[in-house]
Amino acid sequence: MNIPQTSFPRIVIIGGGFAGISLAKKLAKQEVQVVLLDKHNYHTFQPLLYQVSTGGLEPDSIAYPIRKIVKNFPNFFFRLANVKGIDTEKKKISSDIGELKFDYLVLATGSETNFFGNTEIERYSMAMKTIPQSLNLRSLILENFEEALLTSDLHERNALMNFVIVGAGPTGVELAGALAEIKKGILPKDYPDLDTRLAQINLIQSGDRILKEMSEVASRKAEDFLEKLGVNVWKNVRVTGYDGKTVTTTSDLTFEAATLIWAAGVKGTTVKGLDSKDYVVSGNRLLVNEFNQVKGFDSIFAIGDIACMLTEEFPKGLPMMAQPAIQQGEQLGDNLLRMVESKPMKPFKYKDKGSMATIGRNKAVVDLKHWKFQGVFAWFVWMFVHLFFLIGFRNRMVVFVNWVYNYIRFDREARLIIRPFKRKTSQEV
Amino acid sequence: MNIPQTSFPRIVIIGGGFAGISLAKKLAKQEVQVVLLDKHNYHTFQPLLYQVSTGGLEPDSIAYPIRKIVKNFPNFFFRLANVKGIDTEKKKISSDIGELKFDYLVLATGSETNFFGNTEIERYSMAMKTIPQSLNLRSLILENFEEALLTSDLHERNALMNFVIVGAGPTGVELAGALAEIKKGILPKDYPDLDTRLAQINLIQSGDRILKEMSEVASRKAEDFLEKLGVNVWKNVRVTGYDGKTVTTTSDLTFEAATLIWAAGVKGTTVKGLDSKDYVVSGNRLLVNEFNQVKGFDSIFAIGDIACMLTEEFPKGLPMMAQPAIQQGEQLGDNLLRMVESKPMKPFKYKDKGSMATIGRNKAVVDLKHWKFQGVFAWFVWMFVHLFFLIGFRNRMVVFVNWVYNYIRFDREARLIIRPFKRKTSQEV
Repeated sequence: MNIPQTSFPRIVIIGGGFAGISLAKKLAKQEVQVVLLDKHNYHTFQPLLYQVSTGGLEPDSIAYPIRKIVKNFPNFFFRLANVKGIDTEKKKISSDIGELKFDYLVLATGSETNFFGNTEIERYSMAMKTIPQSLNLRSLILENFEEALLTSDLHERNALMNFVIVGAGPTGVELAGALAEIKKGILPKDYPDLDTRLAQINLIQSGDRILKEMSEVASRKAEDFLEKLGVNVWKNVRVTGYDGKTVTTTSDLTFEAATLIWAAGVKGTTVKGLDSKDYVVSGNRLLVNEFNQVKGFDSIFAIGDIACMLTEEFPKGLPMMAQPAIQQGEQLGDNLLRMVESKPMKPFKYKDKGSMATIGRNKAVVDLKHWKFQGVFAWFVWMFVHLFFLIGFRNRMVVFVNWVYNYIRFDREARLIIRPFKRKTSQEV
Repeated sequence: MNIPQTSFPRIVIIGGGFAGISLAKKLAKQEVQVVLLDKHNYHTFQPLLYQVSTGGLEPDSIAYPIRKIVKNFPNFFFRLANVKGIDTEKKKISSDIGELKFDYLVLATGSETNFFGNTEIERYSMAMKTIPQSLNLRSLILENFEEALLTSDLHERNALMNFVIVGAGPTGVELAGALAEIKKGILPKDYPDLDTRLAQINLIQSGDRILKEMSEVASRKAEDFLEKLGVNVWKNVRVTGYDGKTVTTTSDLTFEAATLIWAAGVKGTTVKGLDSKDYVVSGNRLLVNEFNQVKGFDSIFAIGDIACMLTEEFPKGLPMMAQPAIQQGEQLGDNLLRMVESKPMKPFKYKDKGSMATIGRNKAVVDLKHWKFQGVFAWFVWMFVHLFFLIGFRNRMVVFVNWVYNYIRFDREARLIIRPFKRKTSQEV
């Protein structure tokens, strides 16, 4: 990989998501050599992917070049690489651009869509975990409307305008809300010769409430908001199959739909060589201790979605969200520097800063520890928090301009089919 | 195509570029039925494509949804379609979404890259006439640097960092300038472990001056600007071949380069059935009279790049640029309405509003009829004219934010490899 050997210990970080980047920033300008690897040359702000899929934001404004983040860090090396395997004994990783030895290894590989082994659904449904996937979905949604316009088969037209979203976590809820706003605000203007009342948005949830990680009041209010927007919310229904045409479920319910969006679960992205049953636990995550050390290793760590840290409050592991990732990255940065200096590490303590989701214009739900609120103010809080966490002044400005414009004009101008998406093939990302 | 037959005459416009859109706007809210066809669902602001390729602008901010342009026009139908053929006798077009009869047909199909029959160059070089092509080029430029970092073969590294641009019209000149600014402003920061002095930008021109459509003073000054930026300008050299590695020319000169960008010419995009030698002239354009009627037809018209209108000042046809396209679209709008009302049409008169090109930061050349100027003021004029001609308030705002940011920070943040480009395959657009 053309990386010089120095007297500094080498820390290899795999993954430039929230966890990897917050760790990288902590290690900047310290007496360590850091090699950051990612299969993309940019950091993705995943919480806003659904706005890319629905034409509200440009993909480029929620992505940030990783090289730019680390450009002033001495002893820092970024490489665009697909990591293929880890040799824990020889302390070596292998990748499509060669091998690399490490003194300390940090897995920050994040998570990917979990189809729970259903290959048919995997093949025919759309996922939304990466920018290319979100762009594919954007293309498909628009192509559906164009096709609906052409067919005179009413059955086919209904199916083209029927969007089924599986999973009512923040992603599913936010996407459902955005699609409902497209139905209301964009479709009637863009497609005057199409009966846009036919457009259906169905949100399916296996449990008995949506946003189940949030408070009950948030769930209830979010469901109200969705119903006001015209989204059909189905609870206690589990999707069992999809052949590209018909969605089948555990109940009598079936849906004829050309589009199924799968937001029903994620699983950790493990790497070959570090995937033993000794420490891979449910959700395909790596069991770590309070120092983020992977069980059984001293110098191999995991942070973010891939790490499963059990706490009293979260006996199944910390939630797979941005906040634990960012906080673990920061803490591990401190701990690695301590370890290098042979000082004892400090245990990680998760500070729950609350959670939030937006359903649409003026409609959001926010859960803070001592205060839960919903509606217009929550929506403004949601926006400012997301702007704040976006990396880069330019991105913030561009997102802000888009949001103000979209708000005033009830519009979403990035409704562009730049790369057409061919339906019903397995997805490449 | 599911388009109702009404008592209004039907005007079919093929192409939603500058010409097609300016015509469409003129025909809005008139007693005609208009069907606008394009293979993309967006209008592309082609003059800024080079900024997409070089990471200065998001692709989405130079594209505009065609449906949004025509959404308030009654009797207007947009269809996303690839036109396959024209039956001039039966007054019918065929496409991938079906057939359509027309009363009047307007070709506004624009132009495409002209490789002058050199299939080898076509296969291995990059073109930059569409947004997907520009994004491919953006990915390739960034991938080259990533690869250059990995190789220890100095010869290969040189080739990866050698950019050869063929054709010194506005596209070639603007792209060369932008690449030179990347070399100077971005490379040393993003790739501290790469000797970025190795990066070469070679601009090759077959004639004896660059920007040959502009004044001699503009050509001379633009060449000065390019040389100040470190671009190697080669005049009186014609490129004869490129096998993906070596660029051969009519002189002794050869270049070892992993990237060849072909901006050496365009040709009209004709459609099967309307491609007879009776009216297809040099540059693959359709010969039209002063009313934009294609030679030999009363109710078939061509406007913009595809139309070859001979004037005293331009005996080889009006230049293939935005201005003639916009003006012809507007004039033909008036004339079609006159024709429908059986009034005589008015001949087209081209108003030359001048031309301009930007080379880089504070460096542009502007030719007006009575005033030619270069430098900082020209650069501001160039920016404001381009902002003004962009469609849509949001696009203008986003482009403006990006330009201000890029100017202040010497930066280009859209250096993202969203869809990796595989080199050395024939290009799909």
